[in-house]
Amino acid sequence: MPALEAYRRELDYSYAPGVFPSLECMQKRPELARRLLISSKGQDSEGVHKLIDLAEKKHIRIEVADKALGRISGKENCFAAVVFEKHPAALGQGDHIVLHHIADQGNLGTILRTALGFGYHDIAIIRPAADVYDPKVVRASMGALFSLRVREYDDFDAYRRQYPGHNPYPFMLDGSVALDDASAAAAHPCALIFGNEGAGLPSEFQRVGQPVRIPSSDEVDSLNLAIAAAIGMYQFRR
Amino acid sequence: MPALEAYRRELDYSYAPGVFPSLECMQKRPELARRLLISSKGQDSEGVHKLIDLAEKKHIRIEVADKALGRISGKENCFAAVVFEKHPAALGQGDHIVLHHIADQGNLGTILRTALGFGYHDIAIIRPAADVYDPKVVRASMGALFSLRVREYDDFDAYRRQYPGHNPYPFMLDGSVALDDASAAAAHPCALIFGNEGAGLPSEFQRVGQPVRIPSSDEVDSLNLAIAAAIGMYQFRR
Repeated sequence: MPALEAYRRELDYSYAPGVFPSLECMQKRPELARRLLISSKGQDSEGVHKLIDLAEKKHIRIEVADKALGRISGKENCFAAVVFEKHPAALGQGDHIVLHHIADQGNLGTILRTALGFGYHDIAIIRPAADVYDPKVVRASMGALFSLRVREYDDFDAYRRQYPGHNPYPFMLDGSVALDDASAAAAHPCALIFGNEGAGLPSEFQRVGQPVRIPSSDEVDSLNLAIAAAIGMYQFRR
Repeated sequence: MPALEAYRRELDYSYAPGVFPSLECMQKRPELARRLLISSKGQDSEGVHKLIDLAEKKHIRIEVADKALGRISGKENCFAAVVFEKHPAALGQGDHIVLHHIADQGNLGTILRTALGFGYHDIAIIRPAADVYDPKVVRASMGALFSLRVREYDDFDAYRRQYPGHNPYPFMLDGSVALDDASAAAAHPCALIFGNEGAGLPSEFQRVGQPVRIPSSDEVDSLNLAIAAAIGMYQFRR
């Protein structure tokens, strides 16, 4: 079996660092797991024991790999990681979350976790964007990645051609309809579209579907992206 | 004038790192500003010019301080920072946000920014907690700190004794009332109470006011704290 490399986008596998994200992988998508890495320091951890049980049942190779764990997680006390195969998926027919040029790994992971928390299972990522398989994203998602269908696209049109029946709701600071009104009148299935942390969505999205604004105080410039996405997802689900 | 020290909780001043947070300080609370630090690399920045104009008008000392900026911000390209006096405030009579043992600096800053975005101006912090004046918190708040009244307390009872007329709504995974119902029936002024990232609120908060739960999918363990707080603040403001 080849040596484990530091993560790069080009690899066809990645790492779920930490006990919780590893358990999510082993429980939700065990068929993706190639190996379980454990730390010699984590022998007393209940979570690690559970991971070992699962790996043995599924005949997944287990390795004690302290150095690799430190390298993968950037932390000294990472007790486990699962090496998993990347798994692009076709999106389902329910509501979609479309993330346009999201740059920050923590934001991307938090949005994945929030999406799952509000029952969204289908995520389109428009590149350039943070790499959804990056271990930092997997960790920030708390393993939500393993319960979602995620697909990356080179541009918004490529996504749109594939799912022309989804009604687009781009979230923009100057969207013409307030969130409450948009969600009350929403035509499902929806595509809720959120833009880059600094720049937001390009102005041409004003002509895509129904642009939505989140009413907020003029005392702030804007909300944090992961916060705005959470408010939008929550309100469209009520 | 004494040399600028690396930030510590014991100091009676702190730093607002970055052009945007510095502008918030100089525009909203100029009386707190002791000095403006600028980088020799930021001479062409429009924001830095604006800061210099403001400082000159208010007779605030300006220093080129590349090394101090790097030390304060931990970044190479920090163009400006304002040295400001800490400013504990009495809370107002509107709704309060109560943050109980919040540990993460980024979460705390994000919650401050979100609170201001939804029109909350009064924040109680129950210690032990991240230091609200830490430059990392100030930066994550995007300077929202300078538009808020913030006060730290040693325990929840000390806060409660001071504001007995505020109706407490502790947010708990097993809160007895769903967010929609709680917010629809809310008795203002409220105190929306959010707990620690890992542990949440201690179980004794079940007997404090009206415990609230945010309905979410059982596919996630919980929502990220800053996300949960945002959803609660949004819904109580609708």
